[in-house]
Amino acid sequence: MNFVEERILKDGVVRSCTDLNVRGFLRNQLDTNLIERIGREFKARFGDKTVTKVLTLESAGIAIAYATAKELGVPLVIARKNRAADENSDYVAEIMDEAERVVSRVSIDKAFLSSQDHVLVVDDILAYGSTLQGLISIVDSAEATVEGLGIVIEKGFQEGGHRIRNLGYNLQSLAIIDSMDPKTGEITFRE
Amino acid sequence: MNFVEERILKDGVVRSCTDLNVRGFLRNQLDTNLIERIGREFKARFGDKTVTKVLTLESAGIAIAYATAKELGVPLVIARKNRAADENSDYVAEIMDEAERVVSRVSIDKAFLSSQDHVLVVDDILAYGSTLQGLISIVDSAEATVEGLGIVIEKGFQEGGHRIRNLGYNLQSLAIIDSMDPKTGEITFRE
Repeated sequence: MNFVEERILKDGVVRSCTDLNVRGFLRNQLDTNLIERIGREFKARFGDKTVTKVLTLESAGIAIAYATAKELGVPLVIARKNRAADENSDYVAEIMDEAERVVSRVSIDKAFLSSQDHVLVVDDILAYGSTLQGLISIVDSAEATVEGLGIVIEKGFQEGGHRIRNLGYNLQSLAIIDSMDPKTGEITFRE
Repeated sequence: MNFVEERILKDGVVRSCTDLNVRGFLRNQLDTNLIERIGREFKARFGDKTVTKVLTLESAGIAIAYATAKELGVPLVIARKNRAADENSDYVAEIMDEAERVVSRVSIDKAFLSSQDHVLVVDDILAYGSTLQGLISIVDSAEATVEGLGIVIEKGFQEGGHRIRNLGYNLQSLAIIDSMDPKTGEITFRE
């Protein structure tokens, strides 16, 4: 069991068979030592690749992505959600929030990604994969290269991880949850 | 001239007498070395206080606030904007975006601030001060103590800084801009 899995067992709260509350250490309140360690772990997993930028979507992934970019010594680029965007000066993608059935628009200024860039995409939680697919689409629009995708917690019982790996990407999740039992609070991780 | 002022002169773009574009190093793309140095500077300025938590509002201030919390060795609490909030379980404040004349609601889970907490509020840019006033209001709701407020760039020609200092708070801005000239691109800092 790694440090992320241990922390989930210690402080995560199973609210339903699909809903895990990690607000106290990863989302609304951040344990900065944990975040720094996550950044170091992503460096260990992707540091042998040529990475020129880390990319995330505001706002839940920002601290993790910053810690990762800091370790790798590269800039962090933050895609914005539902901001005024201009197809001439911004790369734009639509993402579907499958839980809430809402479409959002994500965008970044074209100045911050070019065909020379090798991008590590980082986010906190992976469920259906629509955020990652939107960020991959933005990297593709820039004709840049996706070197990998780093996720802290993957909900292995939803299809996002399967979708992204099927597309051939190097997706690394620090903890993959196969199931959660709200009655007992039990969490089963993938080996 | 300090390192923030130097960086603004090097990479900031004056778009009007009130609008400074710092997206390339502070907002949409982050220079992680700069962000880390800002965190260290806030530690130098507030490290003699008892600080138990750093507080910011999503999403522009998150990386700076994380870097500051990391230096101080305390958790980072992130207030959320326009999320579903419950007055029973969340502290809630309204903030007025004076540029866009829009009212937003900011909230944090009550679990993450208590009357025992000594809070350093951190944000990237200060203009009219409504975000800081909203965050101060949330700290007050928790009966916690505002130990100080750290800002990277203060627009000294707008009234936020004056308002907050008039209320007696220890507000530290790393760069205070007194005026900008869009014709020449000249930026005048407060001594």
